[in-house]
Amino acid sequence: MGTGSQAVLAVLGRGLVDPASAVVRVDDSGLTRGDGCFEGCRVLDGAIDKLDLHLARMARSAAALEIPFDEAAWRDLAALAVSAWKHPGEAAMKLLLTRGPTGFAAIGPLPPDYPRQRRDGLRVVTLDRGFASDAFASAPWLLGGVKSLSYAVNMAAQREAVRRGADDVIFVSTDGVVLEAPTGSVVWSVGRTLHTTPPGATGILAGTTQRRLFERATDTGWRTELTLGTVDDLRAADVVWLVGSVRGPVDVVAIDGTPRDRNPVVDGEIRRLAGF
Amino acid sequence: MGTGSQAVLAVLGRGLVDPASAVVRVDDSGLTRGDGCFEGCRVLDGAIDKLDLHLARMARSAAALEIPFDEAAWRDLAALAVSAWKHPGEAAMKLLLTRGPTGFAAIGPLPPDYPRQRRDGLRVVTLDRGFASDAFASAPWLLGGVKSLSYAVNMAAQREAVRRGADDVIFVSTDGVVLEAPTGSVVWSVGRTLHTTPPGATGILAGTTQRRLFERATDTGWRTELTLGTVDDLRAADVVWLVGSVRGPVDVVAIDGTPRDRNPVVDGEIRRLAGF
Repeated sequence: MGTGSQAVLAVLGRGLVDPASAVVRVDDSGLTRGDGCFEGCRVLDGAIDKLDLHLARMARSAAALEIPFDEAAWRDLAALAVSAWKHPGEAAMKLLLTRGPTGFAAIGPLPPDYPRQRRDGLRVVTLDRGFASDAFASAPWLLGGVKSLSYAVNMAAQREAVRRGADDVIFVSTDGVVLEAPTGSVVWSVGRTLHTTPPGATGILAGTTQRRLFERATDTGWRTELTLGTVDDLRAADVVWLVGSVRGPVDVVAIDGTPRDRNPVVDGEIRRLAGF
Repeated sequence: MGTGSQAVLAVLGRGLVDPASAVVRVDDSGLTRGDGCFEGCRVLDGAIDKLDLHLARMARSAAALEIPFDEAAWRDLAALAVSAWKHPGEAAMKLLLTRGPTGFAAIGPLPPDYPRQRRDGLRVVTLDRGFASDAFASAPWLLGGVKSLSYAVNMAAQREAVRRGADDVIFVSTDGVVLEAPTGSVVWSVGRTLHTTPPGATGILAGTTQRRLFERATDTGWRTELTLGTVDDLRAADVVWLVGSVRGPVDVVAIDGTPRDRNPVVDGEIRRLAGF
């Protein structure tokens, strides 16, 4: 999402608004407390990719936060925003709802790093997330699986990755289980089996692109498994991807400074299955 | 902080602004990622309480987040806001800085629950924070001790407390150590010794009111200790307080539904030492 010259902003209850205007008050707890939820969606040639999955997850996030969510109004808002977006090709849309409540759909260009990352792959570092892999089992106040606005740790981890000469992060639990990336799922392949971390007790987000990928992969002969894997499992895997809705699946080319061979055949197949 | 008719808003780089106006754009990562930091301060009869301690902590938070922080400019901004606040008695000031960067000082009335809570004490529930008590020892990306805008879990925990018929929360580590409240420190007394949880590896915030209380208590013959205590330690304590900058120290009158006797003599002494 950007709000420069190439941008569209539609605000819930207001309609299209100048994207350079301020729309959030200083007492909105989405700002003061990170108290709200969001989705990041891919726009491709004027169509929103898997909007149903994003709205369903946003409804779950809002319900966990006890913020009212009118799915039909959000569907209309997203349609209004995309109708005003006149650029072909890929774009990024953010849907964001605060407890304020402030709600908006904003569309802007792809993040500038994404083309290079898709081409060259991702150098990742593994970072401890501080939680055990079952920390969220019976503690709903920890907001496991909720795509909240409280992403400061996710952003700090990505800065730590850059400091270490890498592009992104794979979070690991205190008991050594691979969790997720700050803004995406982790998927790895071993032969014709795709693995990802189970949501639920791990607290990770259920990825929408990971979900679609696994459904389509199953249709084309892959096995899929929800696996509590380790970093050693990633090292031994054929291919490891970080999978996000806007960036798509991008293969990991180094883990903690150790390069990995790329596998263009499997990688290409997985990217195409995910719609990229 | 409120932004109703009784409110003042001063924005960094702009000066005094209508507090009902929107000042934050939708691409400000303070909003989209909870990526920023804040302080909540008490204003009493037109003076800001312990502003130096708040600015020092905010500078540490901003440094941890790698956001530039100009302490002199913030001192001027706070002074500008308080000069426009014409109401005697107590008020709440919020200082907030995003990566945007957006910075503001906002002043409004005390939260409406505080007078009742101060009078009747706090019923608290203990909730698992999901982290071990040493989770933050060597993981700066987890932002231990940083007063970031990513407070969604803190707010969800307070909603859980209300759901259980209580007023507030004491977070506990997975290994049973008392941590902090969602918006304050935990302090407890045993005889003439005051205890609180050490910051650092525990990840808790270093409380400014707790700090001042401990300094003044030492001057009047109390011993003070940084203690990795348990909920049983709290049950056995003479008095337990949640200590915040705006609410002050408020004694705990029930833990997980079990009432506690109040001790008005010790409680009164501690509140006065803290300046309340």
